Amino acid sequence: MTRAVEGGHRSVNMGPPRSFGTVLKLKLKETLFPDDPFRQIRKEPLGRRSIQTLQYFVPMLEWLPNYSFNLFMYDLLAGITIASLAIPQGISYANLASLPPIIGLYSSFVPPLIYAIFGSSKHLAVGTVAACSLLIGETIGEKASATTQTELYVSLVFTTCFISGLLQSALGLLRLGVLVDFMSHSTITGFMGGTALLIILQQMKGMLGMKHFTHKTGVVNVIQAIFKYKNEWNWKCALIGVVFLVFLQLTRFVKKKNPKLFYISAMGPMVVVVAGCLLAYFGNATKLGISTVGPLKKGINALSVNRLNFDPAYISAPLKAGIITGVIALVEGIAIGRSFALASNTNVDGNKEMVAYGFMNIIGSMTSCYLTTGPFSKTAVNVMAGCRSQMANVVQSVCMLLVLLFLAPLFSYTPQVALSAIIISAMLGLIKYKKAYHLYKTDKFDFLICMSAFFGVSFISMDMGLLISVGLALVRALLYMARPATCKLGNIPESNLYRDVEQYPGATGIPGFLIVQIGSPIYFASAPYVTERVMRWVREEQELANDNDLEYVLLEMGGVTAIDSTGMEALIELRRNLQNKGMKMILVNPRIDVMEKLIVAKFIEKIGEDAVFLSAEDAIEACRFTLRNSKQGTVEV
Amino acid sequence: MTRAVEGGHRSVNMGPPRSFGTVLKLKLKETLFPDDPFRQIRKEPLGRRSIQTLQYFVPMLEWLPNYSFNLFMYDLLAGITIASLAIPQGISYANLASLPPIIGLYSSFVPPLIYAIFGSSKHLAVGTVAACSLLIGETIGEKASATTQTELYVSLVFTTCFISGLLQSALGLLRLGVLVDFMSHSTITGFMGGTALLIILQQMKGMLGMKHFTHKTGVVNVIQAIFKYKNEWNWKCALIGVVFLVFLQLTRFVKKKNPKLFYISAMGPMVVVVAGCLLAYFGNATKLGISTVGPLKKGINALSVNRLNFDPAYISAPLKAGIITGVIALVEGIAIGRSFALASNTNVDGNKEMVAYGFMNIIGSMTSCYLTTGPFSKTAVNVMAGCRSQMANVVQSVCMLLVLLFLAPLFSYTPQVALSAIIISAMLGLIKYKKAYHLYKTDKFDFLICMSAFFGVSFISMDMGLLISVGLALVRALLYMARPATCKLGNIPESNLYRDVEQYPGATGIPGFLIVQIGSPIYFASAPYVTERVMRWVREEQELANDNDLEYVLLEMGGVTAIDSTGMEALIELRRNLQNKGMKMILVNPRIDVMEKLIVAKFIEKIGEDAVFLSAEDAIEACRFTLRNSKQGTVEV
Repeated sequence: MTRAVEGGHRSVNMGPPRSFGTVLKLKLKETLFPDDPFRQIRKEPLGRRSIQTLQYFVPMLEWLPNYSFNLFMYDLLAGITIASLAIPQGISYANLASLPPIIGLYSSFVPPLIYAIFGSSKHLAVGTVAACSLLIGETIGEKASATTQTELYVSLVFTTCFISGLLQSALGLLRLGVLVDFMSHSTITGFMGGTALLIILQQMKGMLGMKHFTHKTGVVNVIQAIFKYKNEWNWKCALIGVVFLVFLQLTRFVKKKNPKLFYISAMGPMVVVVAGCLLAYFGNATKLGISTVGPLKKGINALSVNRLNFDPAYISAPLKAGIITGVIALVEGIAIGRSFALASNTNVDGNKEMVAYGFMNIIGSMTSCYLTTGPFSKTAVNVMAGCRSQMANVVQSVCMLLVLLFLAPLFSYTPQVALSAIIISAMLGLIKYKKAYHLYKTDKFDFLICMSAFFGVSFISMDMGLLISVGLALVRALLYMARPATCKLGNIPESNLYRDVEQYPGATGIPGFLIVQIGSPIYFASAPYVTERVMRWVREEQELANDNDLEYVLLEMGGVTAIDSTGMEALIELRRNLQNKGMKMILVNPRIDVMEKLIVAKFIEKIGEDAVFLSAEDAIEACRFTLRNSKQGTVEV
Repeated sequence: MTRAVEGGHRSVNMGPPRSFGTVLKLKLKETLFPDDPFRQIRKEPLGRRSIQTLQYFVPMLEWLPNYSFNLFMYDLLAGITIASLAIPQGISYANLASLPPIIGLYSSFVPPLIYAIFGSSKHLAVGTVAACSLLIGETIGEKASATTQTELYVSLVFTTCFISGLLQSALGLLRLGVLVDFMSHSTITGFMGGTALLIILQQMKGMLGMKHFTHKTGVVNVIQAIFKYKNEWNWKCALIGVVFLVFLQLTRFVKKKNPKLFYISAMGPMVVVVAGCLLAYFGNATKLGISTVGPLKKGINALSVNRLNFDPAYISAPLKAGIITGVIALVEGIAIGRSFALASNTNVDGNKEMVAYGFMNIIGSMTSCYLTTGPFSKTAVNVMAGCRSQMANVVQSVCMLLVLLFLAPLFSYTPQVALSAIIISAMLGLIKYKKAYHLYKTDKFDFLICMSAFFGVSFISMDMGLLISVGLALVRALLYMARPATCKLGNIPESNLYRDVEQYPGATGIPGFLIVQIGSPIYFASAPYVTERVMRWVREEQELANDNDLEYVLLEMGGVTAIDSTGMEALIELRRNLQNKGMKMILVNPRIDVMEKLIVAKFIEKIGEDAVFLSAEDAIEACRFTLRNSKQGTVEV
């Protein structure tokens, strides 16, 4: 491909196309390995290469040898901080999932250890998440009752975790991280907000000390249930709950005003738990009518491999919950890991992280844990507490081990109302109304996508809300693909630049020429539209031009980065149509992929190499030259 | 928006964004009315406007007043020609759909009349299609047997036609023609080829004069059935069939060699039918063991409104068949109408055509007809026979009326083997191996899409084949969206042009600058990738540059025709990341939609208006000026 530039002559590259193998390799690389993880490794000699490859797959082998006591001091503090958050969160979210609370503590013991071995993010703190806990509780609750069929219920939840882990590992190993990118931020904002609203409403049971409630989620159902059992409202309970909630919100406010005091907010939930336990113990909870969490026995996670339940009668629920929560957990974890990594100028391989999450959940499901990921709140606390590496997760694990071995029974006095207050406080922060308003101002379709997730989750169901929102986002993208942007270009005066006349009304047209810029790849979905739209530009131009005959139609193809066979047929049809009207089609700045296809399809032969130019200016100059000569009688080809 | 160009100063348009209403109206217009059908009407005074609007909705009112006897002569010839094709095709395809053959004749009487009233294409000839007939036969055949439950079967087929018509009208009225664009040409080629293969294999029953066969489609099943009933092979039948087939292929060959003799090929099927009838009548068909089509009674279409069957027990089959065949019929008809229109330099409103097809099928379903559209073969014959307007369809209708009133019983002697020969001859032309080979050479993904349709239809089922193929095409488009093309730009020597360095290896980089061109909209699916990819370009550039520090990263945004909120967050993150590395982000040539969003999101405020330029050249010049001044000690903001 060396004919491109010869001296002062700027011509379009007509060289032979790259081989299919080259192109395929390039495209596969961009799709599957966009961050080129093996770049460093490739340069090293063979011996080091094997070590580095092993380090690639087991990141702990990379950072551990370089670990120092100094770093450990930071990680120790961060680890203890997140462990203090893990205890109340673990018990609360296990409650959300209708699981025995001890499982919430188990889930902050084993998974962080696994992540520390296989995970790459130095900032991520592993733990359970509210949204997924609720979804699991709701989905498995359709097949088995958490209260009357506890053993079946718990085994199905472990199975769900196993399936999530399997899915995550598979996606990561097959380098299908690109699928996770299809979850728009607007969808996530709306989904999280809707889920937060549902959870807050459900906590009314705990806050008001009610005995009966509804199993359904959905705003309408829950509000109905709250008022149906009005007689069960316990004022003492509500008062305690409000006090706890106000306290927690105050700690958050303090942190917002002075970020350095973040630990006050981080310690808040633990304080509430301890205060609640003391209140329940000394204040005689049952007399007050306040229910507590229930027994938490000492001892570490039991193996639960035998409890995994693949019985076809029930398997549909774990499958559905496993797939949806697996993807949601990935999306949240990857997004958070990425943004902290970018902020600290490091890089995180999304696909590798997915494998780490997968292992975390597979092994977790075999050790009495349920779904974990890297929740934003915990990770943010981890970062602010000064974590330096994955060791913070190890510290968290060890703290949790100590709790499980010695302190667990103490927490059995935790009142439900305390947990409800903690959950409500956490969820209030997830309803991002400011962000939704910002979306409304900047991009109304995205606002629609966000709201569809929010209302879908709140009023229909969590999976329907997610489906509708993702569907809308895809529809937007597909519609854009089917209706690519085209615009007419005009000359910016006193320059050789050609820009969109709608954006730059001062840009002038050239008599006899119409320059249309096509802004996207011409694929099957947009091919018929492109042809018709260009012809419409031609018709409109002819109406404007009156006497001036249109001789040349220039297609600026800088934005057409790809074309398929249907698109090629459209170009051929367009050229034929223009010829019928007595106009010549000129291509300007075709891209490499498109040029290769046009050459192979012999389109360049038909149109002539003299009809393809590097820039609009070159094209117009050359065509004017031809026009002038033909008018003077000499025929220039 | 008038600050754009001031004298010699070329600055990017920072004017206030267009109102939401303006943008929405523009986008809706592009999506729903891409061909701007009311453009002409809008200019006229009120009185004419109402007439023109009526003419828009009922095209017959537009062309009929201007009709002349001269035109009628052409249309008469064309109409008779296509009627002669309609009789054998009608009987054969009704056979494919396991329907009483008279229904095939009915379907060439009423639908063409309806099309002539509401249709816009001057070239389209209305009739039944083989692929849809087979699909209907197969799908309805699962619910009701055509031989033992004929009344139920036929009523379900009419219901299918009604549902197709309803769907088509709805899509057309809602201007959802864009959906039809999502059927790639490769998919259609593969689908038609696969269906043709299935039909050819099924005709072995008729060709070999067998009594028993399989109801299943699918290459394996059919071949097994052929050999299972070996003992039923009738050599006399096969011989007659081969003679007919060779004759028909000869007529096609003659037409290919000399297109002026097209009528020989057009008359072929009619000749075969007549010859077959004579042979059966005089040769005593039953003695030869040749089965005939069966009784065709005189008389025109009976009303069949009462036969529409929406019984929930059976409705799933008509729904499924109705939707799939409705869409396929649309895709074929619209594609054909469009390409003949473009070739003759007129325009066809896809959405309006869809409404015409819809009415055709709704009214057809109420008058004992089944699914019709504008098949390619018939339309091609219509055009070559010199049709001038929709009147050709009216002539076809009238001819069919005469046949129904007087001649129908004569055709009951048509041997099945003659119909099989006609069908095989027609189907052989649909297996476009040359086109598939061309696809293989030009675009291997499209080849894969085509082959998946072909093999899916042949070996699995028609709807699965279609689904897989459309799915693959969508995956390709979505993948492209998630991995947009980016490239590094370099300066073409002795010019101010900046082009892809991979396409133009002679293009040189500028020390201290990295110019990355982003080739597509930055949507949620591609946002994380764009950020990571640009950072990778930066890393690779830093490795190449050695001593030279990278100061500026220019993002050429000419190809970024749209951005959503996730994309905007990606830009913000990218800028922050570059800042952390000590580099400044410069935007070059942002498009109108993107610029408006960036202004509203206050991104331009953050980055500074002096960081946005109209072209790469301007940007580099300005930055160099800044660099030089800052080096000299004066600080230029």
